[in-house]
Amino acid sequence: MNVNHRLKTIRHFMYEKGIVAIIIANADHQYYLSGFKTIIYSRPIIYLADMNSSSLIVPALEEVQAKENANVNNIIAYYEHPEMAHKGTSSLEQLKLLLSKYPSGSKIGVDMDSISAKHANFIQQLGYEIVDVGEKIVEMRYIKDEEELELIKKAGELSNLAVTTSLNACREGITEIEIDAIGTNVLFEETAKKHPNSTLDLFSMSPSGTKRTTMPHVFSNTRKLQKGDIIIHSRQVSLNGYRAELERTIALGELTDDQKRGFEAAKVAQQKAIDFIKPGVTAAEVDEVSRNHLKQAGFVEYANHRVGHGIGISTHEEPSLRFDNNLILKEGMVFTIEPGIFIPRIGGFRHSDTLILTKNGSKLITECPKELNDLTF
Amino acid sequence: MNVNHRLKTIRHFMYEKGIVAIIIANADHQYYLSGFKTIIYSRPIIYLADMNSSSLIVPALEEVQAKENANVNNIIAYYEHPEMAHKGTSSLEQLKLLLSKYPSGSKIGVDMDSISAKHANFIQQLGYEIVDVGEKIVEMRYIKDEEELELIKKAGELSNLAVTTSLNACREGITEIEIDAIGTNVLFEETAKKHPNSTLDLFSMSPSGTKRTTMPHVFSNTRKLQKGDIIIHSRQVSLNGYRAELERTIALGELTDDQKRGFEAAKVAQQKAIDFIKPGVTAAEVDEVSRNHLKQAGFVEYANHRVGHGIGISTHEEPSLRFDNNLILKEGMVFTIEPGIFIPRIGGFRHSDTLILTKNGSKLITECPKELNDLTF
Repeated sequence: MNVNHRLKTIRHFMYEKGIVAIIIANADHQYYLSGFKTIIYSRPIIYLADMNSSSLIVPALEEVQAKENANVNNIIAYYEHPEMAHKGTSSLEQLKLLLSKYPSGSKIGVDMDSISAKHANFIQQLGYEIVDVGEKIVEMRYIKDEEELELIKKAGELSNLAVTTSLNACREGITEIEIDAIGTNVLFEETAKKHPNSTLDLFSMSPSGTKRTTMPHVFSNTRKLQKGDIIIHSRQVSLNGYRAELERTIALGELTDDQKRGFEAAKVAQQKAIDFIKPGVTAAEVDEVSRNHLKQAGFVEYANHRVGHGIGISTHEEPSLRFDNNLILKEGMVFTIEPGIFIPRIGGFRHSDTLILTKNGSKLITECPKELNDLTF
Repeated sequence: MNVNHRLKTIRHFMYEKGIVAIIIANADHQYYLSGFKTIIYSRPIIYLADMNSSSLIVPALEEVQAKENANVNNIIAYYEHPEMAHKGTSSLEQLKLLLSKYPSGSKIGVDMDSISAKHANFIQQLGYEIVDVGEKIVEMRYIKDEEELELIKKAGELSNLAVTTSLNACREGITEIEIDAIGTNVLFEETAKKHPNSTLDLFSMSPSGTKRTTMPHVFSNTRKLQKGDIIIHSRQVSLNGYRAELERTIALGELTDDQKRGFEAAKVAQQKAIDFIKPGVTAAEVDEVSRNHLKQAGFVEYANHRVGHGIGISTHEEPSLRFDNNLILKEGMVFTIEPGIFIPRIGGFRHSDTLILTKNGSKLITECPKELNDLTF
């Protein structure tokens, strides 16, 4: 991934603020700035950049991979085997060495939202002043470049395939986790065919039944579908680190009249936001358009989350399409649109799609039928 | 999950240290103390306990689920829809309210390793002194109780099934991600049958070929297996939040003599550590036993990570079986044993198994053949 323009932007910001170096702990920011993404368990990875060079501090067992894939000037490993212990055994030890070239009192930028209090204290105790650069990086990530948009579009195509396949498998007796697995399998096959040497990072959930659909963030479990169930099947596909999201509320057989009203209200609220969103409107206005419809339909009290969120490297990222966010939207931003209503003893209803803001409007990159007729299995 | 004994322990610690309340940001610590596990995207969840009560601050859309599943006295939601905004729109706003009952200057315990610098600053700016309680909770999690061990054993059984199934599917032309998927599917079926109303959290990777097996933490990709490949197939299964790990290095056809020597050395180094580990020995000694064998075999320079790590709620947790950790091991601790060697241009070799320390020794909870003959496909 080409990260030069990103480094240029952040260095301009550092110059303006008198920041001599930035230290980034957030894995998604690290990927954005270095193109390096790995599986992080217990061993910290630290990104550092100053005006001239960039470095990644990695555990020894990621060293080969980092040298292969990371767009940074230096890879610095720390070791957990005694033969190499003299070269440093912890990320903080290596960080201290890297920092030692900056004079005491220098301003060091960190991502305050992600860096641990322990690491922030460590930097301060070395005599540096820390200032937040997390918000700046979050803001840089608002607008996606061409390379990012291409990956997100491909992730959208993969989402379409997976969700359609999962939905078509819904029948009495199948479990939530099996619904997810069926879509996952087709993704593995399709990705192997179409995108050689790629990595996938997948998430899906399929809460089912009246009670579980009112809990929008539960892990799929072994509950078996029953006649009359509502199911909210949700999937995010990340292809080489970039994501799209697609979600459909479906029915297994006939819904009750109350449920049908809920379904329709959520569906129309989503469509109104999709039709409305474009560069120049604010995030709050998009939320409002959708909530106004839910208010008319009598469901707004059950709509307990924002209409959507930014998406890209992170599952959720800024800008948030939330009632109190007056940010003006711009071309190149990518959002999910997903107003949801979760009605006790009746059920939850939400469709989610991903779209890219274009010059004059938006382009959906996910597609799947939205009408109850087409989503009754 | 019964968390009373855990709260009792941490409250005793708080009493001794003069800590009036603890604020915990780490999701795994939160699960340990509250039994509440959810999918965390962008909305913070904060756990707080004082001597009398415990609270979870959750986004509104997790409120139903938290009331259902969390073992805490209070669930406090924050809202992102305008109708409820008067009750608080951010986790920090709710945290401020909760903290307001403690006098300025009180000691507040936080998990310094996980809480963000931003949140730690927020607490300090409200006039409180923060002290680390993260290490204490990490230490409490060293030794698993009966309920935890039961879940880990079941996760071990599921791992055995999944890994065996994936290994038997290895053949020329299959991709790494398909190897993973085959094991994942059988897990979904088995879990649906044997563990109703359970959640699974799965991870697997299958780096293959000379180069990729020397990078022990890469995501599986679409590389197709070729004759002569080494594959390191690794899987963690978490059942209702508790984990086991099983990993095997296998061959597709005949390996070279160099590769056979690497395979044997890693296998024997693992067995020596498994035979040695028991209550009373130190973490460092377990690492040493394994490294001594690798030294004799001439491979120790390629063994660039510790011999194993604690496992339970987290993919990796303390105690670390590392050369510089002199902790004395105790009954009820659970470890992976996984010495690995990663030799440039030859390949990577590692088996991993999970075991529980018993009164006089240890009990393996994962099983799968270890000999090259049995692992050549």
